[in-house]
Amino acid sequence: MKTLRRVAVIGVGHSKFGRRNDALLEEIAFEAFKEAIEDTGNRVSQKDIELVVVGSVGTRHYEGSPALPVTEYLGLADKPLIRVEAACATGSAAVFTAYNAIASGLVDIAIAIGVEKMTEVDTPTSTAVGGRAASYLWEFHMSGTSFVAYYALFATAHMARFETREEDMARVAVKNHKYGAMNPKAHFQREITIEEVLKSRVIAWPLKLYDSCPIGDGAAAVILASEDKVKELRVEDPVWIEGIGVSSDTSTLSTRLDYVGLPSVVRAAQMAYKQARVEPGDIELAEVHDCFTIAEIMAYEDLGFCKKGEGARMIREGETYIGGRIPVNVDGGLKAKGHPLGATGCSMVYEVTKQLRHEVKPSSRQVPFKKYIALTHNVGGHGWYAYVMIFRR
Amino acid sequence: MKTLRRVAVIGVGHSKFGRRNDALLEEIAFEAFKEAIEDTGNRVSQKDIELVVVGSVGTRHYEGSPALPVTEYLGLADKPLIRVEAACATGSAAVFTAYNAIASGLVDIAIAIGVEKMTEVDTPTSTAVGGRAASYLWEFHMSGTSFVAYYALFATAHMARFETREEDMARVAVKNHKYGAMNPKAHFQREITIEEVLKSRVIAWPLKLYDSCPIGDGAAAVILASEDKVKELRVEDPVWIEGIGVSSDTSTLSTRLDYVGLPSVVRAAQMAYKQARVEPGDIELAEVHDCFTIAEIMAYEDLGFCKKGEGARMIREGETYIGGRIPVNVDGGLKAKGHPLGATGCSMVYEVTKQLRHEVKPSSRQVPFKKYIALTHNVGGHGWYAYVMIFRR
Repeated sequence: MKTLRRVAVIGVGHSKFGRRNDALLEEIAFEAFKEAIEDTGNRVSQKDIELVVVGSVGTRHYEGSPALPVTEYLGLADKPLIRVEAACATGSAAVFTAYNAIASGLVDIAIAIGVEKMTEVDTPTSTAVGGRAASYLWEFHMSGTSFVAYYALFATAHMARFETREEDMARVAVKNHKYGAMNPKAHFQREITIEEVLKSRVIAWPLKLYDSCPIGDGAAAVILASEDKVKELRVEDPVWIEGIGVSSDTSTLSTRLDYVGLPSVVRAAQMAYKQARVEPGDIELAEVHDCFTIAEIMAYEDLGFCKKGEGARMIREGETYIGGRIPVNVDGGLKAKGHPLGATGCSMVYEVTKQLRHEVKPSSRQVPFKKYIALTHNVGGHGWYAYVMIFRR
Repeated sequence: MKTLRRVAVIGVGHSKFGRRNDALLEEIAFEAFKEAIEDTGNRVSQKDIELVVVGSVGTRHYEGSPALPVTEYLGLADKPLIRVEAACATGSAAVFTAYNAIASGLVDIAIAIGVEKMTEVDTPTSTAVGGRAASYLWEFHMSGTSFVAYYALFATAHMARFETREEDMARVAVKNHKYGAMNPKAHFQREITIEEVLKSRVIAWPLKLYDSCPIGDGAAAVILASEDKVKELRVEDPVWIEGIGVSSDTSTLSTRLDYVGLPSVVRAAQMAYKQARVEPGDIELAEVHDCFTIAEIMAYEDLGFCKKGEGARMIREGETYIGGRIPVNVDGGLKAKGHPLGATGCSMVYEVTKQLRHEVKPSSRQVPFKKYIALTHNVGGHGWYAYVMIFRR
């Protein structure tokens, strides 16, 4: 169903992603927040924000409510506040929650702040947190399935059923590192080769170290406003959220029907396309959830950019590079930009907003648009949560 | 601001609260869910639910994403899903999130499920989680302030400034145990005396064991629907959410201006009263957040039921018993019914819904209504989060 009010992105901010031993959780959040405020042309300040949604999985287990130090440090400690979590899709869940509070008429300006400090945990480790987020009793605890092991099952299934090869997955890493090398906020800023990926340490075959996104710290912030407020503030370049699709799925992998795609993504995408009244072919830029390289290949298929089984061909033929049919992850993706869980969904919205506004530097990283339509695809776990959003300038 | 669509409660369910060694987290959630579905007169089943919001603080630290086992067990694992957290106000945050998604027009039926299993933790303990949820670095870590210690500071300040005495706080416990004894779902089902409270073990003076709510397990579920859907389903007794107020505050107690009330509650209440166009004097039943007895006394004041400093007089004169001016916590409150963090806000909505519909048994626990207006007041921590909602039948 279409919501009753339109909602626009009017400001975005992004911290440096990476190993941030130099800053506290709240300081990293501030980097993103400050940029987002400035990005509105200072049309908005703390006093104007009517709802704060903090997206954080809370991998720092020693802290019960990570939203509190963040809002306190940002000068937002007297605002309506909510923290949301949707595993690795937490940032998108924060945008979704802020969006609904505006679309409902309750507030006119809301901010979604995604933030995570994954390098600073007590116990368990961040990797164990990933495994534990799934079906703890049946899969993590009993069979010891770690998070990368889940995606290795998808990779082997995809290879067995289609012509997907280790080299194709490596090509996804090569593309995303190419763009990460051009993004000063990315965790990894160097190009890599197919050979480097193939020779890197095996984590869970066929996935290797260079098929995997890193553990890291970071934040991104998105300021949303109602159509009335966009007019009142005379926002020059609003980016409209035209569709929001959400779905979920069983976290017990052993009950899935197959391992070559994520049904929750298909459902979420259909919901978003329907709301936005667009087709997959209308998408000119996609930021997708490449926690492992196989995940990006499945995303091409599940989002309808190609038929099931043809994802590997898309990367092999360069269709998802800038200049190709549908550029994907031109900021480095989770693979090279990094994946601080709660931040990732907001980081995707940051990137599509900057791209749709033609503000990306260097210009060789700027995607050309005709229809000015972009998509974000944020997955929690192996499809436990799926959030797909469509943006238009 | 008023939202664009009205939202009603059309079904509520509630598990037994207490030490639930007999059931898993998801099984406890199912108890509440099954009742909520039946409470709609089976007008709604899983297939009709368009959004699931799970409220859970996640005190079982071994699990990263508590919403997943719950939705899987409930047959909701393919639905749009979000987990929210607002410390002890998590259940209300879930209702708020579901409410907005309906008010915005995005969906017509949503469910908020609050659930917590606090007796089953690894490390840290539930009590430590409470302390850690505040300003971890500055208060919990450096000065060792536990959660009850925060409220002890409020109690001593209130006693120093007003005529509030230990006996008055004990009277709150006596009232809430009286009603808890009549509520088969309550954690504690026995009456206590003022003497028992005063003689119970001191936890953080002046707060004693019997001034404190218990650590426990439980779930509550609330099914919400749009006005269109209420008509379509021919719901006989919808209970309308007329106002939702939300605010927050610093979690660093040392930066508060005083310790005799919670400014976030005052702000949230004003927001809710304004939306609902009612005054404190219109409220005929309130479910308030009595995590410690002093918290209920401060709630009377912060919600405007009496002037600041007169809260102790209200309980002393019996004004908050059934038959009094404004009955409060007639289900036992957090004190006797229990306080499984994520469940509490939804449990409050359960109680006001049952009361407004005249469905409470025994009838001696049924509140009489003239205007049919009730309020819930759910606080996270010592006012870090505040959610106030107003209901009308």
